[in-house]
Parts: sequence; C-alpha cells; structure tokens
Amino acid sequence: MADKLIIFDTTLRDGEQSPGASMTKDEKLRIARQLERLKVDVIEAGFAASSNGDFEAVQAIANAIRESTICSLSRANDRDIARAAEALQGAASARIHTFIATSALHMEKKLRMTPEQVLEQARQSVRFARNLVGDIEFSPEDGYRSDPDFLCRVIEAVIAEGATTINVPDTVGYAVPELYGNFIKNLRERVPNSDKAIWSVHCHNDLGMAVANSLAGVKIGGARQVECTINGLGERAGNCSLEEVVMAVKTRRDYYGLDVGIDTRHIVAASRMVSQTTGFVVQPNKAVVGANAFAHASGIHQDGVLKARDTYEIMRAEDVGWSANKIVLGKLSGRNAFKQRLQELGVQLESETDVNNAFAKFKELADRKSEIFDEDILALVSDESVTSEKEQFGFVSLSQHSETGERPQASIVFTVDGKEVRGQSDGNGPVDASLKAIESHVQSGAEMVLYSVNAISGSTESQGEVTVRLQNSGRVVNGVGSDPDIVVASAKAYLSALNKLQSKADRVAAQG
Amino acid sequence: MADKLIIFDTTLRDGEQSPGASMTKDEKLRIARQLERLKVDVIEAGFAASSNGDFEAVQAIANAIRESTICSLSRANDRDIARAAEALQGAASARIHTFIATSALHMEKKLRMTPEQVLEQARQSVRFARNLVGDIEFSPEDGYRSDPDFLCRVIEAVIAEGATTINVPDTVGYAVPELYGNFIKNLRERVPNSDKAIWSVHCHNDLGMAVANSLAGVKIGGARQVECTINGLGERAGNCSLEEVVMAVKTRRDYYGLDVGIDTRHIVAASRMVSQTTGFVVQPNKAVVGANAFAHASGIHQDGVLKARDTYEIMRAEDVGWSANKIVLGKLSGRNAFKQRLQELGVQLESETDVNNAFAKFKELADRKSEIFDEDILALVSDESVTSEKEQFGFVSLSQHSETGERPQASIVFTVDGKEVRGQSDGNGPVDASLKAIESHVQSGAEMVLYSVNAISGSTESQGEVTVRLQNSGRVVNGVGSDPDIVVASAKAYLSALNKLQSKADRVAAQG
Repeated sequence: MADKLIIFDTTLRDGEQSPGASMTKDEKLRIARQLERLKVDVIEAGFAASSNGDFEAVQAIANAIRESTICSLSRANDRDIARAAEALQGAASARIHTFIATSALHMEKKLRMTPEQVLEQARQSVRFARNLVGDIEFSPEDGYRSDPDFLCRVIEAVIAEGATTINVPDTVGYAVPELYGNFIKNLRERVPNSDKAIWSVHCHNDLGMAVANSLAGVKIGGARQVECTINGLGERAGNCSLEEVVMAVKTRRDYYGLDVGIDTRHIVAASRMVSQTTGFVVQPNKAVVGANAFAHASGIHQDGVLKARDTYEIMRAEDVGWSANKIVLGKLSGRNAFKQRLQELGVQLESETDVNNAFAKFKELADRKSEIFDEDILALVSDESVTSEKEQFGFVSLSQHSETGERPQASIVFTVDGKEVRGQSDGNGPVDASLKAIESHVQSGAEMVLYSVNAISGSTESQGEVTVRLQNSGRVVNGVGSDPDIVVASAKAYLSALNKLQSKADRVAAQG
Repeated sequence: MADKLIIFDTTLRDGEQSPGASMTKDEKLRIARQLERLKVDVIEAGFAASSNGDFEAVQAIANAIRESTICSLSRANDRDIARAAEALQGAASARIHTFIATSALHMEKKLRMTPEQVLEQARQSVRFARNLVGDIEFSPEDGYRSDPDFLCRVIEAVIAEGATTINVPDTVGYAVPELYGNFIKNLRERVPNSDKAIWSVHCHNDLGMAVANSLAGVKIGGARQVECTINGLGERAGNCSLEEVVMAVKTRRDYYGLDVGIDTRHIVAASRMVSQTTGFVVQPNKAVVGANAFAHASGIHQDGVLKARDTYEIMRAEDVGWSANKIVLGKLSGRNAFKQRLQELGVQLESETDVNNAFAKFKELADRKSEIFDEDILALVSDESVTSEKEQFGFVSLSQHSETGERPQASIVFTVDGKEVRGQSDGNGPVDASLKAIESHVQSGAEMVLYSVNAISGSTESQGEVTVRLQNSGRVVNGVGSDPDIVVASAKAYLSALNKLQSKADRVAAQG
C-alpha cells in the first residue's frame, strides 16, 4: 500500500486572510460541510483567539463536522492555545496549530525577541497545548528563510514536547522546488527525533510555484501533509491550490506513488462555493476549475481531440465535477424536488425555515425566469445564507431609468433595522445611481474598492451575481447579491456589504 | 557575465488559441508594441498560413516592430513555411517556427503517419525553411510524451539541416519539474550536435506547474529560451506566465544565475491590455499581476509590513508597474495633455485621426465623469480600437427602465452598415432586455456563452467594462464594450461581438 498524503485545507483560515475574503459563521459552516464532502483530512477552521466571531465559527464547525479533523490556529502563548482548545471541545477529532516566527528578520523586526526566547516560547507552548489536545501541529513562521541550525533546535524541542506535525511554511513565496525539497530533507535528516512527527508543507504562490514547491517538499523532502486552499485563495498571490495539488498527485501517481483521500468529484462545486462566497472570481485559464480548463479551441487540437481524447487531455472533466449545465427545475417544481436537488448539489441548509425561505425565493425566481439552472439554485441559497442572518439592511424594491443624453436616475426602498426607508439619486450609470440612492440615506462613509459581476450561467437571462468590496476605517468586506436584474443585484450586494461592515465592526470591538 | 535567458512570448499565437481570445489585427499590433516595450526577445505573432487574417496580422507586426524578433508558426510543409516567410518579409529580425508531432499517440491518431515519415517531413521542412530565413525554430509537438530515442533522431536531423532553436513542448501539461528538466538534459547529452542550437521550453499549466517545469528545463536541462504568455493566456489552463517566470528568475537570481532582458515596469500595463482585449479576467490572487498580489490583510502581516517591508514582500510592486490610481486628467485637459498621457501609458494610436477620435470620446466622457483615471483612458482607447475598424454594427443610443414588480424594458438605436435601426424588447433584467432589443432586429442566431463585467477602477462612478462571448456555428468570439452605464456597455459589447463574429466568418471563408 502506498503512503497517504494528508490534505490540510486552510481556505477558512489562511484563505480568509485575503483582503475582502472574510466570511460569516454560516458561510464558513457551509464551506466546511463541502470540505467534509470532499474528504479533506484536516480543516483549519479559523484562528479562535483572534476574535469572538472567529471563535464562534471554529466552535460551530467543530460541533458540526464528524469526518474531518478540525484545527484552529493559535499564536504560541497560553491564552491563544486555551481559547483554541475551548473552541474545539465539540470536535470528533481536534488539532491545535501553534506558530511562532523563526527567521532572523521576523524575530528581530516583528517579534523583537532573541532566538533563545523564541525557542523557549515554542517549547512551552507545545507543552501547554499537549495537555489540552493530543494532536498538535507546530509551524516555524517564515521557516524557509530561517537559519537551519536554529530551526533544527526549535523543531527537535517541540517534537520532544509532543508536537505531532511539523509544518515548514514558505511564508513569503520565495522558494523554488529543488531548494525547498532539499531544505525539508535536510531538516528531517538532522533533527534526531524527526520520525516522531509527520512533516508538512505550506507554500505561497508569489512566484507561481506553490504547487511545485509543495510537491518537491513531498517528493524530495518526504513531507506527508500539504496545506492548501480551494482556488488557491490566500493573501497576495494566494496559497497552494487544493485542486491542482490533488490532481497532480492523482494524475502523476506513477511518479509520486501516494494516495490521497479526496473525492475529486466535488472539486468544482467547492470551487464555485468559495468563489461565490468570497466574491473572488476564478480566471477562465485557471487549472482544473477555470471555465476553459477542459476546453479546446484551435482547429488542430479539436481535430486531435475528436480522433483520440488522450491526445490533448490528461484528466477527465467529469472526475473533478464538471458536468453539462442542465435545466433542472422550473416553475412547476415542488418543494420536495427543490429540496432533493439541493441535496444533490451538496447544499445543506441549517433548518426547515431556511429551506422554506430558499424555496419561496426559488418560486419567485421561477416566475421571472423560465429555466432554472443548478447555478441559479446555488446563487439563490448563497444569497439566502447572506440574508438569513440578523441584519441591519434589507432590500425591498428598486426603480431605475437611463437614457442616452440624460443622467441616470434611481429610487430605492430598503429596510434599516426593519423599518422601510427610501433613497433617491442620479449617478454616472444606473448602478452608480442606485448605490448613491442607498448612500443618500445611510451615509456610511465607506469607500468602494471593487465592483465585479460574474455571470452565473451563459446568457444574460441568468441571474447576475455582483460583488461589492467596501473599505471603512481599515476594514475590508465583500458583499454579494444576485438577481436577474443586474442593477438590483448591485443594490443587494451593496446592502450585504454594509451589513458585513457593521457585523465586522462589532467583531473587532469585541476582540479589543 | 551570466547567460541570458531568451523570453519568447506567444500571447498572440498560443494565447490567442484560447476559446474566445481571438483578436483583430489592430489589437494584435497594439499588444505587439507593448511586448516590444517590455523588451521581449521573440514575439510569436501568429500562424500565417492558418488564415488570411492571421497572415495580415503577422505581416503588420513584422513591418511595425524593430526591437524584437518576429516569429510565425507553421506546420512542417512547404506551403505553410513559404506563407510564413512571406508574412515575415518586412521584419528587422525574422524567425520561422515549424512543428510536427512526434509522440506515438499523436503520430498514429492525429497525423496517421509512421515515425519514419515524420522524421523525413521534419528534415525536409527545416531544409526548405532554412533557404528562406536564417533563424529556424523546430518543435516536436507533444515532445515530452515522445519516445526519447526517436526524439533524439528527429532533433539531430533538424539541427543538421540548420534549425537554430529546439523547443520541447509539454503540449498537454503532464510534466513535473524534475522529470521535465532531466528529460531535456538527457536529450541535450544524447544528441551529438545539440550544442549547435539553443534549447527552449514550452509548458502548459494543466497541473499548475508550468512555471516550475519551465524553470526546471532551464536549471536542470540547460534550456536558454522560455516560451510564455502574458497572464498565462492559452488553451485549457493556459501557458507558462511571462510575468511569473520573469519575476522568478529576477527574484531568485542567486539560484538561476541568468539575465533576462525584460523591462518589468511594463508588466502590469501589458497584463491589463491583454485582459481588456481578450475579455479574460485576471483573478485577484494571480501572482504578480492580480489585484491582491501585493496586498496584505491580516493584522499580523500588516504589523509586520509596517515594521519591515522585507518581512512579507520579496518583490516591489512598483518594479512590475503597479502604481497608485491617480487622477490624471479632467474636463479642462487639452488634446496635447491627452496625447502625452497616452504616450506615458504606452498607447500608440495608428493615426492622427485615431487620436482625434479618442480625444473626442475623452471629452464626452469627461462631461459625464469628473475624474478621469488612467484606467478610463485605457478602456477608452481599447474601446476606440474596437470601433475604429470598418464595422457592420455601431451603437447610437439606448433607453431602459426596470422597476420591482414590472418586466424590464429597453429600446435601442444602432447602425447596421451605416443605417440607423431601432429595436425594442423586454427581458429578465435591463441588460437582457437591451441585448434582446438588438437581437429583435439582427436575429444572429448566436448563443451567448459568457457575460462578465470588470470594474476598471474602484467605484461604480468608473466606466464598466463588459465582455460578451458569443458562439455561432462553432466560432467563438469575445466582444468588449465600456461605458459608465453598465447597460450601455453591455449593448456596446454585444454589438462588438456581433462585428467580430461577422469578420471571423469572413476570415474563415477566405481560408477555405
């Protein structure tokens, strides 16, 4: 039997650190359920001590997920670790992931600590954590740029204290495959008790090599855990992509000789869910999950593909969950058919009330749109989840008009804490006028830093899904809204972003 | 002095093969000028024999570009090669790139030729090409999956006939770095006359490792040319990204020890130009050119960055052309200021008439939008270039209205071959109604397969840039339109796509 490669997904922790990618507890829970369906071995659910919101999300995921190990990040101090352990109490299988920086640059400039202080703090933290949870992962932050002699001392000490996984992050995405693989190989050879822990890789994609670096850490270095995110979400250029690293190991099993437990048929659904939740688009030429990943255009290639599929395809689209965009439901479909389709799509709503709310929205949509696609349903429940929380702002109705030569006008009715208000404005376009109509009443002072639209299905008959990214007092949030009318979708997205800005403000205040 | 790594850009050839990425001659010429500004060593401008349109584009680029070598692809037959040489006649420096498949699978299933026939055809083609042009590149298609013994015989033969560059493509994106590097090393060691040619790598990103594979071909294999595209554009998951491979070699010069001639300060402008022209969005977490590539979000990282930039940044944003989004022009700016700003942005319009047209559009925009950003100007000239060609359809005016509870309505006036026509329709949303209003008159029968919107600047005060992808009788085109009113931008994009569908139909007919 081949060795197993452990897939550690950190979409909900390192992925969420992307500017604008912050998610609500319900959104995180839904993604965690999809990760469990994917058979991810370890889900890093958050950083429990960083805020009450993060604590609650980790706790909810620990209570809900049974098949994957649930992990919380924590700095190397007793308070953070105790808080992580508390959040993880309900988990079927719990892991604490504690970290401290070990590179000279980070120790001096960021921590302002001596190497001996860092070594001592790492040792004590793992000792403290080991009394609370049996499964402890330790990361020397900026490990790849750390002095190997010092790193060996730190790693030996934390393994001696009971760390069961040693993760070596390339925090800044500086590595190249051969050097990174040999760096880990060298550590494993030099640390006397290295065989007492599983070694792990954590790579960033700043130079476009996160997947190759991770796999060099596995092949050359002997690591048996890869840390990754759906769509490669993460700060700056992001993390190693789960879908790419998994498909590389599966497609080149002849070379890597490793098993992975992932059920790849759920990859595309996971990719869409993360993209729709965070508002981070996936570019068409993204490997595995991009819209073009399995398409062929040039005459030569099309001819080749017709003659023999293997000439240009090394993976099968259906193996990662691509399927034809089918009409699944219509105006006459009942609640049971709707509920069954939700299950087939891997969507699990929290309560019967949520199902009823989603079904009401579905019927409303079916009145306006004759063909309902899977993507419409996903957008609808995604929208549903956003609005199912207790919210300050809610959309009611909109009227807008634009005509060449005149200034576009919009008039909107929305709720503030349950009370209907009306706003009116002109603007550079109908979307601009609608959002200004909201601001004419709310006066949030937020700055819009991104506005984007994803078509969910092929034609403009589909619902448009709009992402609005707002920034206020250093906080960045994405709001998502969907509607067949792109102006309405924009207004919904704006209100959703205002709600998130509000709830994030509460969260940060609670942390302070 | 370190060895030089030759950067061979194939955005205009392999990149254009992406479904929907086809470009007009003027668009290709503008991108070629930007590639010259980047100091790309070789520009693969197209595949001259594939269509009259491609021939004309290669010819125009060969006539216009002085600093880069201009290359045309050609199959391994005399007709294709003669056509390539003809298109390249005006080039300051010309290269013919001829290819034939060498893997057992491709020879048997696609070419239906024996290995001996393929060897003979490769030999004869290079001999023929060598009489027309001094700089000959040869690619064994699907080289990485070819039998090494046979591949050695083919490569030895074509070098003996005068091929000056040998390119080893991983056509299907199947390689892993170590194996690909050693594959090329092995070929170079076994082919007796291997030192008479420069070796080149051409990798696809299906498993997310195109950059790492290319660089393994360089570091382990000794290749000194990398084939790549802006934004990694290309079929399926695309090609090796120019920006990633260049920044990896520059950032890790300590390891690669190679010089690249690229002026990296023009990378972001090139990325935007390619994205705006093709309608292929760049995801925020794309390395180097993604909107988040240089951003930091988590509290920990922000603190680190404030204390010392090096803690989390290995490249400088300004080195690849990121700059603050500045207000550059307004309502009162004159034609000279506008023209100068165009030059600073690297935009070169073909004639004074084009400058005048663009300036008129600028004044019109400035009347509706008080702050004009660089991105507005780029969108405006991008739009300008689309509409400057002889076109069947042109936008005149639009009126639309949507109101909750009623069906959205649109009425549009546009020109067909210069004559004004009017269309009217309802739809699921105002965009849908507007496009249906166009179709009510045109009845193209085209299917919409993609609709997307890129915000050019941060807020909805900016122009919206819309991409519409249409498909008809197996042809796929992208149309792009921009306007502060997203509904108008959508209508412009749809008309632009109809124009392209028309001109592509002409092109294909001319080829047949």
